[in-house]
Amino acid sequence: MPRLYAVIMAGGRGERFWPLSTDSMPKPFIPLLGPRTLIQQTVERLLPLLPPGRMFISIGEAHREIAGRQLPQIPPENFIVEPVGRDTAACLGFCALHIERRDPDGSMVAVPADHYIADAKAYCRTLEKGVDALPRATGVVFGIRPNRPETGYGYIQVEPPGSAGADLSVLRFVEKPDAVRAREYVAAGSYYWNSGIFLWRNRTLLALLHEHMPELYLGLDALRSLIGRDEARAELQRIFVALPRISIDFGVAEKTSGLRLVPAEFAWDDIGNWGALERALPHDDAGNVALGQYVALDARGCITYSDAGTIATFGVSDLIVVQALGKVLVCPKDRAAELKRLIAALGPDGAV
Amino acid sequence: MPRLYAVIMAGGRGERFWPLSTDSMPKPFIPLLGPRTLIQQTVERLLPLLPPGRMFISIGEAHREIAGRQLPQIPPENFIVEPVGRDTAACLGFCALHIERRDPDGSMVAVPADHYIADAKAYCRTLEKGVDALPRATGVVFGIRPNRPETGYGYIQVEPPGSAGADLSVLRFVEKPDAVRAREYVAAGSYYWNSGIFLWRNRTLLALLHEHMPELYLGLDALRSLIGRDEARAELQRIFVALPRISIDFGVAEKTSGLRLVPAEFAWDDIGNWGALERALPHDDAGNVALGQYVALDARGCITYSDAGTIATFGVSDLIVVQALGKVLVCPKDRAAELKRLIAALGPDGAV
Repeated sequence: MPRLYAVIMAGGRGERFWPLSTDSMPKPFIPLLGPRTLIQQTVERLLPLLPPGRMFISIGEAHREIAGRQLPQIPPENFIVEPVGRDTAACLGFCALHIERRDPDGSMVAVPADHYIADAKAYCRTLEKGVDALPRATGVVFGIRPNRPETGYGYIQVEPPGSAGADLSVLRFVEKPDAVRAREYVAAGSYYWNSGIFLWRNRTLLALLHEHMPELYLGLDALRSLIGRDEARAELQRIFVALPRISIDFGVAEKTSGLRLVPAEFAWDDIGNWGALERALPHDDAGNVALGQYVALDARGCITYSDAGTIATFGVSDLIVVQALGKVLVCPKDRAAELKRLIAALGPDGAV
Repeated sequence: MPRLYAVIMAGGRGERFWPLSTDSMPKPFIPLLGPRTLIQQTVERLLPLLPPGRMFISIGEAHREIAGRQLPQIPPENFIVEPVGRDTAACLGFCALHIERRDPDGSMVAVPADHYIADAKAYCRTLEKGVDALPRATGVVFGIRPNRPETGYGYIQVEPPGSAGADLSVLRFVEKPDAVRAREYVAAGSYYWNSGIFLWRNRTLLALLHEHMPELYLGLDALRSLIGRDEARAELQRIFVALPRISIDFGVAEKTSGLRLVPAEFAWDDIGNWGALERALPHDDAGNVALGQYVALDARGCITYSDAGTIATFGVSDLIVVQALGKVLVCPKDRAAELKRLIAALGPDGAV
């Protein structure tokens, strides 16, 4: 069986969790769900499966330092710095080049650094099922059984499920649906949310990139000999910037036959905005969820987050109240997804 | 004309402006309306009328130190420390004892340390009118022309007004009315809000206390010889604790004939809770008022106060949002008066 490596993808912007997240401190690096940051939780969750020496962190130049400080157990050479963000196809292709230098026969599990996973043990069990399925598959994707007609996620249709718990044949990937289709997908029973977690043999991934994204592969092939050479840095950057900006889902997975889907055994959320904390944290009797000290009096359904002292909600309902980095956000839960509008109003430094 | 002294009354609790105010830092000592604290604003407002050497600060033992730090221009011997709070009749009687040692013929303007006064010049003009009226009066009270049927203030009925701007004869003091009566009072045109600001000849005040509150006067008479003597401290405290707890309004003013009312020329508010900031601070186009940095997007009628970074209100209305001392309060404006319930829920140290 090929040796397993992990690629933890820590790209992304800092807009949706203002004031806690910022462009200089985006979502993976904030302690959104507890005392540890999301990327720290991600590394710890993977430890039962593979040692830190086989974990790679895909990261932008701007966040190399903070990532190193937060993850001292990861060897410095395992931080793969992208000159610019070029979406997940380029990201994973670039990581595959790094892994092949280490182990040409390795396989790679690619996990976003900013997900909520309820149960770390179930998570490892699920990934191990993926490892077991990989010999029979071109690649493995992990799917989440939908419990609501979410329009914010992509879906994956599978062959009608056979024996419970087994891996399934992927029929097709579906982009974020409208509400009507989302309800159909949930009702059908043969659709899963796309978790964004993929498992590939490294060699196969590069071959699939070659087949389905020849322009990207050409760039990667040129990068191959430049990796790790300080004097080739400018050249590497020049080529990387020109790589096409496509996700691995659209660029490769959609076009690939023989993919298998392993249903996740764990509760999952991509924690897209403050509103998602409601699904990831325990509720009090009045439906309030909180991280940090809080007092709720005649308050219902509120989400509070404090990195400092107590947040007191009194006589309000369904609000998000965040105190972080000396700033405060108050907005209704149902406006959480619109936070980008507020960021724009906050001005260029996001702080006013 | 008798020399004028001021007594600035800085008693009171810290409950209504949590988290900014606390029992150890009550309302007079917080920067509620700008960079200066309310007691600092009070002293500065009086400076055109009398020098700091003639201002006395009536204060509880627990707040002597903070008051001294906030008011370095007041001579240390002018801080009159009450062993315990015994309401305003005992407070002003005790202060009168201090003033008579300095100047047996002086007069005293007694002002609460925690009011909002819109216009300091008009304030001084109004007090000067009081000084002019004092020779024709037993005492002078300053009244605020009501602009709404407020049920949270006491009212003072006067003789039907004669020439505009002149002082008026006080008919009676009325306790906080219900809403129906408050509307009647406002409609009648002969009622003023009781500002709690009084002007007395010191000697007259002591005589009135003697006449209307003989028990209190007996206590004060016993205190007279103990003031300023360190070795008599325990004795002073023993007597002070036994003084009756009555306000100057009920204990003296109500029972005194010959009082004159000077109508205030300035906008006034007793800033009873966070909701009052709306009447004391400028509004933006959407009716939001703020102290400290704020951004309001789709937010209307909110009150925000920050002693740290930006408060962002997004898609909410008529909320109070306070960030102070690392804590946060969110409540609807119309619940501001109920904040004591929250304080109780916060536990004994008010901080949880």
